Amino acid sequence: MIIVLRPETSEEQVRRVIERIEELGLKPHVSRGESRVIIGAIGAHASSFAYHFEGLDCVERVTPISKPYKLASREFKHNNTVVTVNGRAIGGKQLAIVAGPCSVESLEMVVETAMVVKEAGAHFLRGGAFKPRTCPYSFQGLGEQGLKYLKEASRRTGLPIVTEVMDVNEIDLVSEYADVLQIGARNMQNFRLLEQVGKLNKPILLKRGISATIEELLMAAEYILAQGNPNVILCERGIRTFEALTRNTLDINCIPAVRMLSHLPILVDPSHSTGVAELVPSVSRAAIAAGADGLIIEVHIHPEEALCDGAQSLTPNTFLQLMQDIRRIAAAVDRQL
Amino acid sequence: MIIVLRPETSEEQVRRVIERIEELGLKPHVSRGESRVIIGAIGAHASSFAYHFEGLDCVERVTPISKPYKLASREFKHNNTVVTVNGRAIGGKQLAIVAGPCSVESLEMVVETAMVVKEAGAHFLRGGAFKPRTCPYSFQGLGEQGLKYLKEASRRTGLPIVTEVMDVNEIDLVSEYADVLQIGARNMQNFRLLEQVGKLNKPILLKRGISATIEELLMAAEYILAQGNPNVILCERGIRTFEALTRNTLDINCIPAVRMLSHLPILVDPSHSTGVAELVPSVSRAAIAAGADGLIIEVHIHPEEALCDGAQSLTPNTFLQLMQDIRRIAAAVDRQL
Amino acid sequence: MIIVLRPETSEEQVRRVIERIEELGLKPHVSRGESRVIIGAIGAHASSFAYHFEGLDCVERVTPISKPYKLASREFKHNNTVVTVNGRAIGGKQLAIVAGPCSVESLEMVVETAMVVKEAGAHFLRGGAFKPRTCPYSFQGLGEQGLKYLKEASRRTGLPIVTEVMDVNEIDLVSEYADVLQIGARNMQNFRLLEQVGKLNKPILLKRGISATIEELLMAAEYILAQGNPNVILCERGIRTFEALTRNTLDINCIPAVRMLSHLPILVDPSHSTGVAELVPSVSRAAIAAGADGLIIEVHIHPEEALCDGAQSLTPNTFLQLMQDIRRIAAAVDRQL
Amino acid sequence: MIIVLRPETSEEQVRRVIERIEELGLKPHVSRGESRVIIGAIGAHASSFAYHFEGLDCVERVTPISKPYKLASREFKHNNTVVTVNGRAIGGKQLAIVAGPCSVESLEMVVETAMVVKEAGAHFLRGGAFKPRTCPYSFQGLGEQGLKYLKEASRRTGLPIVTEVMDVNEIDLVSEYADVLQIGARNMQNFRLLEQVGKLNKPILLKRGISATIEELLMAAEYILAQGNPNVILCERGIRTFEALTRNTLDINCIPAVRMLSHLPILVDPSHSTGVAELVPSVSRAAIAAGADGLIIEVHIHPEEALCDGAQSLTPNTFLQLMQDIRRIAAAVDRQL
Repeated sequence: MIIVLRPETSEEQVRRVIERIEELGLKPHVSRGESRVIIGAIGAHASSFAYHFEGLDCVERVTPISKPYKLASREFKHNNTVVTVNGRAIGGKQLAIVAGPCSVESLEMVVETAMVVKEAGAHFLRGGAFKPRTCPYSFQGLGEQGLKYLKEASRRTGLPIVTEVMDVNEIDLVSEYADVLQIGARNMQNFRLLEQVGKLNKPILLKRGISATIEELLMAAEYILAQGNPNVILCERGIRTFEALTRNTLDINCIPAVRMLSHLPILVDPSHSTGVAELVPSVSRAAIAAGADGLIIEVHIHPEEALCDGAQSLTPNTFLQLMQDIRRIAAAVDRQL
Repeated sequence: MIIVLRPETSEEQVRRVIERIEELGLKPHVSRGESRVIIGAIGAHASSFAYHFEGLDCVERVTPISKPYKLASREFKHNNTVVTVNGRAIGGKQLAIVAGPCSVESLEMVVETAMVVKEAGAHFLRGGAFKPRTCPYSFQGLGEQGLKYLKEASRRTGLPIVTEVMDVNEIDLVSEYADVLQIGARNMQNFRLLEQVGKLNKPILLKRGISATIEELLMAAEYILAQGNPNVILCERGIRTFEALTRNTLDINCIPAVRMLSHLPILVDPSHSTGVAELVPSVSRAAIAAGADGLIIEVHIHPEEALCDGAQSLTPNTFLQLMQDIRRIAAAVDRQL
Repeated sequence: MIIVLRPETSEEQVRRVIERIEELGLKPHVSRGESRVIIGAIGAHASSFAYHFEGLDCVERVTPISKPYKLASREFKHNNTVVTVNGRAIGGKQLAIVAGPCSVESLEMVVETAMVVKEAGAHFLRGGAFKPRTCPYSFQGLGEQGLKYLKEASRRTGLPIVTEVMDVNEIDLVSEYADVLQIGARNMQNFRLLEQVGKLNKPILLKRGISATIEELLMAAEYILAQGNPNVILCERGIRTFEALTRNTLDINCIPAVRMLSHLPILVDPSHSTGVAELVPSVSRAAIAAGADGLIIEVHIHPEEALCDGAQSLTPNTFLQLMQDIRRIAAAVDRQL
Repeated sequence: MIIVLRPETSEEQVRRVIERIEELGLKPHVSRGESRVIIGAIGAHASSFAYHFEGLDCVERVTPISKPYKLASREFKHNNTVVTVNGRAIGGKQLAIVAGPCSVESLEMVVETAMVVKEAGAHFLRGGAFKPRTCPYSFQGLGEQGLKYLKEASRRTGLPIVTEVMDVNEIDLVSEYADVLQIGARNMQNFRLLEQVGKLNKPILLKRGISATIEELLMAAEYILAQGNPNVILCERGIRTFEALTRNTLDINCIPAVRMLSHLPILVDPSHSTGVAELVPSVSRAAIAAGADGLIIEVHIHPEEALCDGAQSLTPNTFLQLMQDIRRIAAAVDRQL
C-alpha cells in the first residue's frame, strides 16, 4: 500500500511511520517528492494493515497498489524517474544515446569506435566484455581484458560505460569498470542476479527478455527496486515472434505502455530489435517518436569484420546520419539530443 | 524475369516483345517509366526463356527476379508506387490519413464523424458496413444501408470512402459506393477474393493478416497485381504475439522492411495494432517516423457507446491533437500532412 | 439459453415452445436426446427472456450458456456429436483415418494412392483439387478435373472423399463430388463461406487457422452450426509459433481442451502440424493417445516427385507401419481403428 | 569433428590421438561404444584439422559435425544416452516418472505426497525448495529447510530427489540433498550456471525455456556436456504462444525432433505445459505415445490449498488413474512403466 504523508509532516513523524511499517513485518520504501513524502509499505497482504495508518495525524491517505509490481508502478511514484550517471540524466528532456560495438574485440577498435560515436553525439559507450552466446563455441568476449579496454576508451572520450554482467560472481569485477550494469535479455528472470544488483546503487539497464510480457519486465524491475536500488533503466530490445525476416520484432507498443504503467525510463535497442542494419535508422526514429528516452545502438568501425552481430551494426557514417535524423525527431516531440 | 528496353524503343517493338512473351505462355506486365519501358514476364520457369529476349536490339538487359513475389518487388519496379484516389495521392510526399468509425452505426454518427475528421485534416473516411466478427452473434454491420450512409457522409465532406469487402459476391455492391476497397486481415489469404479485386481498377487497401509474415503479405499483394490491378496499398495492423496487454503487436520493423523489398505504399492502423486508445497517439507518431505513407485510425464521436471496438477509438479531441503531433513528425521526416 | 424439456413432453408442446422462441426474435435449435428434448434459444440477450419459459409445465429447467459460442458448447449438448458420412461415423468409438495426396496430380496417382491407403485401413480419401497457395505462381490444383479424378478413385475403392472448398461460388461444384467439404486454415474466418456451408447438410471439416485460438475455432464452428448444419468436424493442424525446425507446432493441448469445452469431434493433421515426414508417426500416435477422433494424413506414392508438400508426405510403407502403430495406441485408449 | 577409431585400437593409440587433439588446442570427448571408441574433437575450426588424423592407422574415418551443437548431436553419439540415478535408468526401455508438489510447503505435505506417488508407481520425487517466481512478493520456497524436508521424504520412500538450483552459489548446497539438479526454464540460457553444473557429475534435468527453439535447447545442453558432464536429461515443458486458454503450449513435435537430432533422453512436464489439471492426463498419454522417456508431474495432497500452481496439480487419485493409463500406453509403444 502507499501511505501519503501531509506536506507539513516532520522527520520524526516519518521515522515513526517507518518503524510501524517494519513492526508489521512490511518493508518501507520512501519516496521524497517536492512537497510531500510518500511511503510504500510492501509485503504479503500489506493492504490489510491500512487501518494502522489511516488514523494518524500526519497521514493524508492510504491507498492499495492494484498492480502485482508496486515500486515500479506509477501508482507508487507519479513523476518520471530520472536516473543520473556521472552527471548525465536518463529519463529527462534530454535523450540518452548509448553506442558502441557489440563486443569489445581489441583496444584499438573500441577506442576508435568510442571516438567516432562521441564525435557523432553519443552520450554513453556500450560494449560487451562478457558475452552470453547461444553456442558454447562462439566467441565469448575478452572478459576482464575487455573491461580494461572499455575503461581506456572511456578515459579518452569521457563517455560512461554500459556493459553486461552475466553472473552474481562477476558483479564486483564488472562494477569496478562499468558506470551502468546491463542485465541481458536472457537473464531478465535470473532472480538471484536481479536481487544482487538491487543491493548496489549503480544504475542498472534491464533488458526485456525475448518472450517476456511487459508486466513481467516490470516485475523483474521490481526485484531490483525491492532491494533498494531505485536506478533502473528499462530497455525494449525486440520480442520473439513468427516473423523470420527480422531477428526479433520491436514491440513499439511497449514504449507508451510502460510510460502509462511505470515511472521508470525506457530505452530502445534497434540493433537487436531488427538484426538488420538497413532497418535500424527507421526504427530508431520510430522509437524516439513513440516516446523512448533514448537508444542503445551497435556501431562497428568495420561491420563486415565483426566477431559478433556484424549484420546489425551501423557504420560510423550511417550512425552520424542517424544522429542527425534523431535530432529532428527529438525536436518534434519536445525532446533534445 | 524483367526485360528492360532501351530508351529509344518504339511502340511497335514494345508490342512485339509483348507478343513473344505471350507466345511463350508467360504473362506480360508493362511498367512505363520516364525514360524507358520495363516489361515483367511472369510465369513458371520464366527465367529459362531469357535467351529469347537477350539478343533483341531493343532490349537493354534481361534479369531474373529472385523473390517469390515478382510484380510487388522493388526489383521489378524501382520507384515508389503512388496510388491516386479521386485526385488524391497515397505514397507520395503527402501523408494519407484515413479516419472514421469502426462500423457505421447510423447516418447521424457517420456524418458527424466525417465532418469532425475532415475538419481535423483527414483525407479519407473509413467505416465498416460489412463487419467480419469473430462471434456470429456480434453486430455484423448495417450492410448496404451502411454503404449509403457512408456515401452521404462522403457527399457532404468530399472525403473518399475506404470500406471493407468480405466476399466475391459483394464486390459489385461495395464498389458502387467505395473509392478504396479494403481487404481485411482475416481475408488476406482469401485468394479468390484477391483474384477478383485484382480484376478491378479500383485501389485496394490490403491489410496484413494477424499471423502473416511480411513475405506472405507481399505474396497476397502479388495475387492482386498479377490480375492487372496495380493500385495496391498495404497496411500493417499489428500481429498476434504472446503479449496480452495490447490487442496486437504493431510490427514497426515491417515499415522499413516493406520499403526495402517493395515499391508499394504502406499505411499503419494504430487502432487495431494496440487496441488501446491511450497508446494510439504514440504509435501513430512512431509509424510516420518509421516511414509509413499514412494512417488508418478509428475515431468515434462517443467511444463509450460504440457497438464495436470502442476501447481503441479516439475521441474527436484526441484525434485533433494527434493530427497536430503528426504534422510535426511529418516535417521531421520530410513529409507533409 | 438452454431450455430442457421434461421427458414426457409432447410434440405439440415442443412445437409451442419453438413458436414462442421465434416470437421473441430468437432462433431455436432442437437437440433430441434419448430421453428428452433440449432446445437452444439463440440471439442477443437471449437469457433475459428465461422467465417466458421457466413457468411452463413441460420445462424442466432453463439455463444460460456462459460461453460466447452456444451451439458448439458442451453446455448446449452434453454428449459427443457423432457425424455420419456414407454410413461411416466420425466421433464414436471407431477412429476415422483420412489419407491421400496433398493435391490431386493425375488420375493414376490418386487412384493408386487411394488403393494403397484403403488397403492399409484408411476410411476416407483426401486430396486437393482447389489448392490455396501462398504464392500465385505455385501449382493451384487441377480444379474440376481433380474432383473427377477423386470421384473415380472413390468409385474404385469405396472411400468417401474429403476435399477443400475455397469460395462460396465453388460450393455447388465441390459438393457434387465431395462427401465432406473441408474449410482450410486460411479460410477459418471467411465468414461468408462458413455461413454458406452452414446451409448445407453435408459434413464440414473445419481446420483451425494457424493463429486462431481454440475459442476462435469454436466460434467459427458456431457460424456453421448457427445456420442449421450440425455436422461439423474440427481439425487441429498446427499453429504458428517461433519454432522454425517444424512447419507449425501441433497444439496437442487443443485436443483435451476442445473435448472439455465442446461436443464436436476433432481430428488431427500431423502432416501440416510438423511439415516433416519423419515426425508424422510419433505425433500421430500422440494425437490418438490424447483423445483425437482420427487423423488426416498426407500420403504420396512418390513423395520426392510431389507437386506440393512432398517433404511432409508419407510413403505407402510408412503409412502402413503407422496404421499398425495407431491400432495399438487405439486399443490402449479404448478406441478402435 | 568425430574421429572413429578401428575396433582393434589399443589404449596407447587412443591416448596418443587424445594428446594430438589437445596439442591442436581442441578439446577431446571420448565415447566408448561396445565395439569401438569414438572421439569428438571440439573447438573453433576443428574440422580443418581433420588431415592430422585421417592418415593414422588406428583411425577408421574422420567426419565433421554439421550442427552447431556437437556432443549433443546424434552424429557424435549414435545410441541413446541412458542416465543412471541411484541405480535407476532414465532413457532406457523403462519410463521415468517424477512426481511431487510444485513447492515444498511443510515436512508433512512432502512426506505424505512422496508416499502417495511412490505407492502409485512414481520413481522420483520432485519438489521446489528454491522457487523462481515472476513476482518478488510471491512465496519463494523454504530454501534449505525445504531441501531437508525433501531428504526426509526421500529417506522414508527411497525415491531419489529432483529439485531446482537457481544460482551458481547454491550448487553446493542443493547438490548435498538432490540426486538430480534441475535447471529451470528461466535459466536455460544462464550460461554461467550451465557451465558450473557441467563440472559436476550429477545428472542434470534441463528444462526448455518458454521461448527457446529446439536448437537452442540442444545448445544449452552442449554448454553442460562441453564441461564434461554427460548426464543431461532434457525436458519439454511447453512454449509460449498466443493461445491463452492454456498456460503454455506443449510442443509435442519436440519429442520426435529431439529424438532425431540428439541421443539425450527427454521428459515431458504436462503440468506446466497446460497449467490445467484436467488436461494433464491426456497430454501425458500423448507424451509417452510420442516417445518421451518419462514425465515430471505436479501432485498435491490438497491442490486447492497449494501455495503455488494449485490449478495444475493432480490429486492423488487422479495421479493413480493417470499411472494406470500410462502403463497401457507404454505397452503400446514397447516401453514399460
